[in-house]
Amino acid sequence: MTQVISDRRDIEFVIYEQLEAENLSRLHENFAAFNKKTIDLVISEAKNFAVKELLPANKEGDEQGCKLEKGKVTTPECFKRLYKIFNEGEWLALTEDPEWGGQGMPRTIASVAAEYFNGANFPFMMYPGLTQGAGHLVEKFGTQEQKDTYLKNLFTGKWTGTMLLTESGAGSDVGALTTKAVKNDDGTFSITGEKIFISGGDHDLAENIIHPVLARIEGSPDGTKGVSLFLVPKYRVNKDGTPGEFNDVICTGIEHKLGIHGNSTCSLSLGSKGNCVGTLLGEKNKGMKAMFLMMNEARCLVGFQGFGCATAAYMYALDYARNRIQGKNLLELMNPKAKSVCIMQHPDVRRQLMMMKTNVEGMRSLLYFTQYCSDMALYAPTPEEQDKYKGFVDVLTPIIKGYVTDRAFEVCSQGMQVYGGYGFIEEYPMAQLLRDCRITLIYEGTNGIQAMDLLGRKLGLNKGKPIMDLFGEMHKAVFAAKALPELEKQAIKVEEAMNKLAEVAIHMGQTAMSEKILNAFANAHPFQDATGDVAMAWMLLWRAGIAAKKLKTAKNKDKSFYEGILKSLQFYIETQLPVTLGRCNALMNTSSAAVDIDDAMFPG
Amino acid sequence: MTQVISDRRDIEFVIYEQLEAENLSRLHENFAAFNKKTIDLVISEAKNFAVKELLPANKEGDEQGCKLEKGKVTTPECFKRLYKIFNEGEWLALTEDPEWGGQGMPRTIASVAAEYFNGANFPFMMYPGLTQGAGHLVEKFGTQEQKDTYLKNLFTGKWTGTMLLTESGAGSDVGALTTKAVKNDDGTFSITGEKIFISGGDHDLAENIIHPVLARIEGSPDGTKGVSLFLVPKYRVNKDGTPGEFNDVICTGIEHKLGIHGNSTCSLSLGSKGNCVGTLLGEKNKGMKAMFLMMNEARCLVGFQGFGCATAAYMYALDYARNRIQGKNLLELMNPKAKSVCIMQHPDVRRQLMMMKTNVEGMRSLLYFTQYCSDMALYAPTPEEQDKYKGFVDVLTPIIKGYVTDRAFEVCSQGMQVYGGYGFIEEYPMAQLLRDCRITLIYEGTNGIQAMDLLGRKLGLNKGKPIMDLFGEMHKAVFAAKALPELEKQAIKVEEAMNKLAEVAIHMGQTAMSEKILNAFANAHPFQDATGDVAMAWMLLWRAGIAAKKLKTAKNKDKSFYEGILKSLQFYIETQLPVTLGRCNALMNTSSAAVDIDDAMFPG
Repeated sequence: MTQVISDRRDIEFVIYEQLEAENLSRLHENFAAFNKKTIDLVISEAKNFAVKELLPANKEGDEQGCKLEKGKVTTPECFKRLYKIFNEGEWLALTEDPEWGGQGMPRTIASVAAEYFNGANFPFMMYPGLTQGAGHLVEKFGTQEQKDTYLKNLFTGKWTGTMLLTESGAGSDVGALTTKAVKNDDGTFSITGEKIFISGGDHDLAENIIHPVLARIEGSPDGTKGVSLFLVPKYRVNKDGTPGEFNDVICTGIEHKLGIHGNSTCSLSLGSKGNCVGTLLGEKNKGMKAMFLMMNEARCLVGFQGFGCATAAYMYALDYARNRIQGKNLLELMNPKAKSVCIMQHPDVRRQLMMMKTNVEGMRSLLYFTQYCSDMALYAPTPEEQDKYKGFVDVLTPIIKGYVTDRAFEVCSQGMQVYGGYGFIEEYPMAQLLRDCRITLIYEGTNGIQAMDLLGRKLGLNKGKPIMDLFGEMHKAVFAAKALPELEKQAIKVEEAMNKLAEVAIHMGQTAMSEKILNAFANAHPFQDATGDVAMAWMLLWRAGIAAKKLKTAKNKDKSFYEGILKSLQFYIETQLPVTLGRCNALMNTSSAAVDIDDAMFPG
Repeated sequence: MTQVISDRRDIEFVIYEQLEAENLSRLHENFAAFNKKTIDLVISEAKNFAVKELLPANKEGDEQGCKLEKGKVTTPECFKRLYKIFNEGEWLALTEDPEWGGQGMPRTIASVAAEYFNGANFPFMMYPGLTQGAGHLVEKFGTQEQKDTYLKNLFTGKWTGTMLLTESGAGSDVGALTTKAVKNDDGTFSITGEKIFISGGDHDLAENIIHPVLARIEGSPDGTKGVSLFLVPKYRVNKDGTPGEFNDVICTGIEHKLGIHGNSTCSLSLGSKGNCVGTLLGEKNKGMKAMFLMMNEARCLVGFQGFGCATAAYMYALDYARNRIQGKNLLELMNPKAKSVCIMQHPDVRRQLMMMKTNVEGMRSLLYFTQYCSDMALYAPTPEEQDKYKGFVDVLTPIIKGYVTDRAFEVCSQGMQVYGGYGFIEEYPMAQLLRDCRITLIYEGTNGIQAMDLLGRKLGLNKGKPIMDLFGEMHKAVFAAKALPELEKQAIKVEEAMNKLAEVAIHMGQTAMSEKILNAFANAHPFQDATGDVAMAWMLLWRAGIAAKKLKTAKNKDKSFYEGILKSLQFYIETQLPVTLGRCNALMNTSSAAVDIDDAMFPG
């Protein structure tokens, strides 16, 4: 079994050749240290840590899982040391402000760690991932006192963080929550409620857990407009900053799940003994807005989780296909003396590997580009540019959560198929990757919710400026590729698909604004598929444009690498793009069947 | 949680209204008893047994799994009673000859039991399923002595049967096997070898296990041409028919699998102490031919296994969507007084349910029709008709194994998505269905092997007569629907897809015969997808043609049911068929990218 879960050469291609990430160092003083030498070091160290430390604990974590015994949650044994050295390596808050213990790294570059770490052991990575997110909330919305109390402890991993949204009756509809907050005389709030599906809600990795909690202050309106955000620690914090009295946050159960066994998914009861106290984070009744900031970052992270599984599945499958000897070459079936070959020589297995290759490469570029846009949204030289990049992040977030995880699951399933019968055996890595990956389609807003976000919010955002800008950006890759004779035809194909998608987007947008709104939303998910397909084609074309130029002087391994990028584009255009056009045609139908059908026409 | 795992009304539609299965009773004396009254009884009893007995044991079977301790394999505790009452109910050999303990039931009608039973508990059903298959081999190829010794015991479930093909170096390439057979003076053979992935290879459900074993007789040629089939009992059979001496078939391990935990997947060592004896079944060196007969039946069964998971997933998801209250109606989002509705009211959930509905209905008709063709292949009035139906079975077998299980897995995943976070929790039924269903894409020949079978063997079989006949049969449904004004437009759409597929089939067939053979086979799986899509459209159109006629007089529930069938067709034509045409366009490209790419262009 290979120890390589990702393709370093392709990572370097995206970082240096596609996004030229070393130029980010000029944008902001925090970034100044991230020259090529430093980035190289980050890539090496992230890979090293992933392969040497995180990966070996992945299977053990899956097998041991988490346990709740006598009110205490234990995580897999091997996670304890891992958590310690992860924090010692200062991997938790790569992109956060150095003032609070972060590394100040551009998100573009931190993507490398996100890829390697999630590919190696994403159930473990959820603990620091959520901690970073919770810390980010405190940084953005906290008072100075809240920051002083919590932030450094979170960003150094001394304490962990969570995200308490979901209740049994409030999942996708967060605004239906019933957790209550009552103001105390000292300005704090007494919290009572029951939360479920809390990742890392309780565990034995750190001395305290800080819960950002959505709750409704007594007297606030129903729905999302009456939701406020609170900080609720597991143990109240003493004046000297140490954890003190237990804050009545009780883990009442943990879930037995299909995957991510190493991460504890908890039901938490807050204030069942009337003794749970929190402080308001941000403004009263503005909890949803604050949470959305965190959710969007969390959605990008989920994209990396799914993608991490996909890249690992691809690399394993490739290694297996190279080493598994089975069957003769198709051209020598009739030759009794022909020797058996590795299954990579069989056309159907090559198709599977190409499907994985193109998807993984396209997803990688798409994810890293979105993180690049996050950097530029903050630090691009002009406010106009910053706005443009912010718009890109807005539009691409549902794509890299919804579309990428849909495809990532397919890549994992394809990888299992390459393994044949061995893919179904838990001893081999494919089963866990498939199981773990499956949650990424569900949490942080199901992929259906993402599709509604794309159609309902992002498409018409700022009168459609971000989506128009994005089409403009896409056409840059077409323009660049058209200038190269060897890519001209392919650029025209991709342009055709972009234009078709633009037509579909206008049609879908208009339908969503018409009396046929329900028909539009019944087609939101296929619209997300088509949009994602075209975004992938854009990335593959962009990549090919760079590769074609480099090929003129490239040698040996690099030559093969660049040629492989051209093959990915060819494969995608020939096998996937016609299907994408079919999806676009289907969207122009905007089928009403799912809306029109009477409930009684379904089996009773 | 609903107890209904399938849609009885739709089953009756397929049996009585689409296939008119009661007319089979006129074809053969064995079938004479199967009039409508008997069929009704079969449906009721199968449903009853599935829901009351098999289903409650499904989760327990999954959780307990199988264990190997001190050389003994134990199955889940609840399977013991189940196996006993299953045999007492005479469910094992429904379609087999009454002379040997079978029920002589048409396969068309036995499909009902296959659907209900596999939907309720397919890991359990593998034990009787493989037993029936092994018995069928004995019936077809056994000597009178072999039949007398084994057949009744197998068909009554007193003993079970297996299928010993795979070895660690011989999976998809069965001909690479190394298990040896050496002839003894008494005409028996001493067998030595190691087999893996043997479903039900050892267990504690029956007093003896009969293994059909593929092995190579000393001196026979390499590859598939030197493979013979043997009957190897776990315990040798005494003259009085009782199990006697242990036959040196040792279970050396069982697999820890992603799913089907209730079924033991064994590694078996034959003759490690030099004491394993078998008898030749059928002719020397003709083992593959015999095995293929069984494999084709097994492949149909695998289609039912996948489909069973899909129909159960659909019914569970539907029930969940009807009862889960979450979020407001999209049209009332701005109304603060609007109440939350069941998620079935949300357009994206309706789309998911329609996706499941159309796929399940189309797959059901396709599976039952194939079984109907098996009946007609044996008993149609004329030899010409028998040949025609045999050709249909040949062509449709890779579709109902390869295509149906691919779609079934998607349906299961879609069902999980309807459940949201609960779908990922093992307490709910979706996780197991997804896990169990996944094996159906792999075993009995991976779906890639099925696609190669379709393109390489079935497309050109008998100079293309079966595939031409099948197109002819498809056009009957178009013709019938065109005669109905309300379906004319839709019939034209389906016809268009059929014609496009015919064009693709000719192109793919020619490419497979040309120097571009590798390109053709690198596109075999997408070709299987496109063929399956069109077969589904055919079935949905056929069904709609019947429903449209019946609607003229139908009332109440029946009216809704038939209207639902029309909606399925509409949904499929509007959302899937354009994608299918896209797949066809992609196939006309017959991308060479996967074949051309150098191995070195993949990451090293």
